[in-house]
Amino acid sequence: MRSFASDNWSGVHPVIMDAIINANVGHHAAYGDDDYTKYAQELFRSIFGPESSTHFVFTGTAANVLALENVSRSFNSVICSEHAHIHVDECGAMEKHTGVKLITLPTENGKITPEQILPHVKSERYPHQSEPVVISITQVTELGTVYTLEEIKEIADLAHENGLYLHVDGARISNAAVSLNTDFKTMITDTGVDILSFGGTKAGMMFGEAVVFLKPGLDKYFELYRKQGMQLASKTRFIAAQFIALLTKDLWKENAKNANDLAQYLAEKLSNIEGIEITQKVESNGIWAIIPPSLAEKMQSAQFFYPWDEKTNEYRIMTSWDTSKKEIDAFISKIS
Amino acid sequence: MRSFASDNWSGVHPVIMDAIINANVGHHAAYGDDDYTKYAQELFRSIFGPESSTHFVFTGTAANVLALENVSRSFNSVICSEHAHIHVDECGAMEKHTGVKLITLPTENGKITPEQILPHVKSERYPHQSEPVVISITQVTELGTVYTLEEIKEIADLAHENGLYLHVDGARISNAAVSLNTDFKTMITDTGVDILSFGGTKAGMMFGEAVVFLKPGLDKYFELYRKQGMQLASKTRFIAAQFIALLTKDLWKENAKNANDLAQYLAEKLSNIEGIEITQKVESNGIWAIIPPSLAEKMQSAQFFYPWDEKTNEYRIMTSWDTSKKEIDAFISKIS
Amino acid sequence: MRSFASDNWSGVHPVIMDAIINANVGHHAAYGDDDYTKYAQELFRSIFGPESSTHFVFTGTAANVLALENVSRSFNSVICSEHAHIHVDECGAMEKHTGVKLITLPTENGKITPEQILPHVKSERYPHQSEPVVISITQVTELGTVYTLEEIKEIADLAHENGLYLHVDGARISNAAVSLNTDFKTMITDTGVDILSFGGTKAGMMFGEAVVFLKPGLDKYFELYRKQGMQLASKTRFIAAQFIALLTKDLWKENAKNANDLAQYLAEKLSNIEGIEITQKVESNGIWAIIPPSLAEKMQSAQFFYPWDEKTNEYRIMTSWDTSKKEIDAFISKIS
Amino acid sequence: MRSFASDNWSGVHPVIMDAIINANVGHHAAYGDDDYTKYAQELFRSIFGPESSTHFVFTGTAANVLALENVSRSFNSVICSEHAHIHVDECGAMEKHTGVKLITLPTENGKITPEQILPHVKSERYPHQSEPVVISITQVTELGTVYTLEEIKEIADLAHENGLYLHVDGARISNAAVSLNTDFKTMITDTGVDILSFGGTKAGMMFGEAVVFLKPGLDKYFELYRKQGMQLASKTRFIAAQFIALLTKDLWKENAKNANDLAQYLAEKLSNIEGIEITQKVESNGIWAIIPPSLAEKMQSAQFFYPWDEKTNEYRIMTSWDTSKKEIDAFISKIS
Repeated sequence: MRSFASDNWSGVHPVIMDAIINANVGHHAAYGDDDYTKYAQELFRSIFGPESSTHFVFTGTAANVLALENVSRSFNSVICSEHAHIHVDECGAMEKHTGVKLITLPTENGKITPEQILPHVKSERYPHQSEPVVISITQVTELGTVYTLEEIKEIADLAHENGLYLHVDGARISNAAVSLNTDFKTMITDTGVDILSFGGTKAGMMFGEAVVFLKPGLDKYFELYRKQGMQLASKTRFIAAQFIALLTKDLWKENAKNANDLAQYLAEKLSNIEGIEITQKVESNGIWAIIPPSLAEKMQSAQFFYPWDEKTNEYRIMTSWDTSKKEIDAFISKIS
Repeated sequence: MRSFASDNWSGVHPVIMDAIINANVGHHAAYGDDDYTKYAQELFRSIFGPESSTHFVFTGTAANVLALENVSRSFNSVICSEHAHIHVDECGAMEKHTGVKLITLPTENGKITPEQILPHVKSERYPHQSEPVVISITQVTELGTVYTLEEIKEIADLAHENGLYLHVDGARISNAAVSLNTDFKTMITDTGVDILSFGGTKAGMMFGEAVVFLKPGLDKYFELYRKQGMQLASKTRFIAAQFIALLTKDLWKENAKNANDLAQYLAEKLSNIEGIEITQKVESNGIWAIIPPSLAEKMQSAQFFYPWDEKTNEYRIMTSWDTSKKEIDAFISKIS
Repeated sequence: MRSFASDNWSGVHPVIMDAIINANVGHHAAYGDDDYTKYAQELFRSIFGPESSTHFVFTGTAANVLALENVSRSFNSVICSEHAHIHVDECGAMEKHTGVKLITLPTENGKITPEQILPHVKSERYPHQSEPVVISITQVTELGTVYTLEEIKEIADLAHENGLYLHVDGARISNAAVSLNTDFKTMITDTGVDILSFGGTKAGMMFGEAVVFLKPGLDKYFELYRKQGMQLASKTRFIAAQFIALLTKDLWKENAKNANDLAQYLAEKLSNIEGIEITQKVESNGIWAIIPPSLAEKMQSAQFFYPWDEKTNEYRIMTSWDTSKKEIDAFISKIS
Repeated sequence: MRSFASDNWSGVHPVIMDAIINANVGHHAAYGDDDYTKYAQELFRSIFGPESSTHFVFTGTAANVLALENVSRSFNSVICSEHAHIHVDECGAMEKHTGVKLITLPTENGKITPEQILPHVKSERYPHQSEPVVISITQVTELGTVYTLEEIKEIADLAHENGLYLHVDGARISNAAVSLNTDFKTMITDTGVDILSFGGTKAGMMFGEAVVFLKPGLDKYFELYRKQGMQLASKTRFIAAQFIALLTKDLWKENAKNANDLAQYLAEKLSNIEGIEITQKVESNGIWAIIPPSLAEKMQSAQFFYPWDEKTNEYRIMTSWDTSKKEIDAFISKIS
């Protein structure tokens, strides 16, 4: 079965599967005390810079929650977009586990701007109002768009001028790097991001995400919060081995480039079809489009994808590391 | 490297690894909506009975917390042993995520008894005292011992007579079934257990645990708590496929039998060594023994295992699904 | 000192103070097991109907949090206005103590409408999205306006049709009843409200609020949550005695009528002053007005009140049970 | 009605009631921004020393929870006695609100010793075990006994040597000071205590407790946690005025001395009665005694008090600030 439903409907990239198989030899210390984990952590440090530190968890929701738990207390608030995954797709995990309040800003394209953020960076009625502590943006956004390096830097500067941290939910951070034709350090470390949730599963892994702290000390309590947060893998080597495969020989880039390029290719084809209106810039591996219901139904039965907003007939079409040109051509020929 | 450190220092059983590889074909619905997951859930139902329902999570700590979150509110208490994993090895996850208070009972052999439990089943000072809601026992216990079927049934009866639930932390439930020469339904469903944390990782899986609710309705909120609890795997098929392999053709039994038998074999060898005193009945895959420090050091450098209580020179030696007789013979010859 | 800052800058009404003094005789059972408390609870039942039950707490924030904790679980969401006290003025207490997510709706006048609420009453992406469980409105709203009986009933119907509860934050519920020229039962019980936070402190008490559950069973866990929520007064008789005084001989009505009438009187005077623009309907004891900065400063030094929105020069002027016509006349003469 | 049930069955001392009445004049800033509150805070500083800071809350449970919330994170543990009020009488408030785990030590007389505490001051299995952060003792203990100054200092030293804080639950701290014939500064500040819950209600107030931080910086987050913890009184002046009365002219001492002296007097009388066995040293205002059931019943109907342990026929008899010699003589004559 093939789909355009989500990049987590795909399986595991063969190179990553091989890495898993190769790691399955003998005994290794549990709970992250093994050589695979140490090597993978060093690999992240070599990419994000010597002041960074990286830890592994199972899910993206966990990465986001544990990233913020270290730098917040329950009386804090976190500023994010109204479409933020931490707000709409984590079943209240952030509030439940950290106690913080989410301050959500409206957005048409998934991005939030310094102008929107500024009025919220300070509490106005201490101690009645939650105290802002983190700005959280998503890169690639939940609407497929990508913040430019300048946009990230501006928000980072705004955060730091006001004593806040900048967190990036990077479930699709590889797609963003490819989209911007840049590398992780330039996009994240050099712009001033403080904490990054680095996505593994959607990039071709079986399971596993990383939390990258870009400044010393920010991960002070991480290991305790992770254990208490039910996210300490006993056989951590199998997360680490996957990340090693993903980050070596630019596999992350190859996977993301395939997904991004094919989203462009598919978007071009779709834009030529009568009645389809693409609603967001295609900057990564997702296409947002308004599609007439009867056509949408025909398309979904050819290869499934999700409605985005049933009221406006808007749909989301996602490509993945394993999407192929041939598959798209077949899809287009079925629906034309 | 080989060790007697813990059964989670082992890797993945080859049959389970094959199942993972075979599941890595094409796209499958994410978040547990796939056929592997449905099949695995049915398999659990066929084992534990038609009233049961089963859900998958990543870690044992998560299995325990989410098992209890469904049937408790923050003003409740949970009765368990002072050695309970939920009390000493989960960094306070139970308190943090559910708010409940743990009432811990002393025990020499890891088991708690109806006589000990009885005085605690009712709150005496409503509403000042936390209200008991669950009795939680561990099978195999944290000291390697195994509750008999009668012992489990007695505690289940006591729980139900007092309006409480019985939860079993079964991180090593397969080892217990083999030890008792019984099957899961007889040990769990038929004795009246309400909720079981079913261990996968220590039984030879890469990652993944199951929460089995034995009575209808007990899992009413599970999916929401799991998502909020950061434990909903997007590529759930890879947990499901592992459980299918584990539960098919009695692989669980084969793995547990190997570990248990070799613990017996090793214990016998050790008991012949001058100065080593075995302190708990060897009923599963762990050996607790007092060992003179110089000998212990020699043994640990031959094949590592953990100290249990440094004050009394007590150590814990664990076998696993991949321990071999040859390995033990070599170990014994090195230390003799 | 006199002010228009807030109705909690006032002291205690003399009749209520007398009730406190009269309750200070001999010993009475602690923690609400005393005759004052039972009598006060019966008094509430006689007002709100035989299916209602009432419990006392210290603060309005506590009344709101404990009201909702009984009917929610951490994976739930609560729908409210963007100006809701539970959202902007309780330092995240709702999120911290119950774990729920607040879904906030924009409003110009403090009220939310069925049209706004409807799209949010169902979760669209189970189990990824928090499940709505309560609609919470504030009566009198945070902008001084008052929902009509029909408006409350419409929202209650909408709630019940969708399996939700309607909660009313009634910190100024007495002012609302006077404004609508109605009684509590008509406004609350008969419209279908499920849970009411009934304000005492702003109505002339020293401390103490009540949580009124209008339907049987809704308060099932209240006493446990209240004790755990740090809100069980040991000398509860002193809260109960105040409520008895407030609810006997319509003292609540007398106090609210004074405050409301004098807000009208003051608003009329202010509206005659060049440059002052009243921005909300004056329906209770608060006046919202845009005032030129230099005039505002002069007014505040005559009798202090708070800015509401510094960007627009909007201010909030509150009257209280102890505001007098003479005081207003003096104020007006000072600023004219 | 008179009782020996608890010192919170008493009412309010007349001097304190007068202070309340006198504070009921005009308007005062809400939420602690008033002169009464500032004066009371200064009064506490003059008593506990210039490095201390004091904040007011409603209940003893709140004082304990908010005291510890400032210096702990959810992965921490708190060491206390198995009889600690925070463990047995607060319905799990500590776990719910702070997430911490309580480590409880057995005790015959309510006190815990450095020898018992020492093995628990360090986590042994980072990050699997909760990290100790606070030792909490109760003074007067839950069994009526009183730690000596040396005992407090020893525990404080042990705490500080291991990077922990010492918290004192002082619901009856005045009775302890009288019992030791000392003052608050000598007992608390000079022994090295870090945080004190200072009891008001049982000392003769209507409501209100204080949290005293003895070292700079420890209260950094207190105001935010208090607001979020639903404990910020809007009319704070009425708590402050009571504390001013209690702490001025040694009213606290007079009240505690009366209660303590009459407990001694009553204990002496009781010890002369055949069959009554006093089980704890009478060091404050409580008497623990084993009493034959028929006699106990007769005594309780003369003047009510609570059973302590129904299995052993042990009872707790409490005197209060308003207990009189005449009342005790009448009681004794009725039961003799």
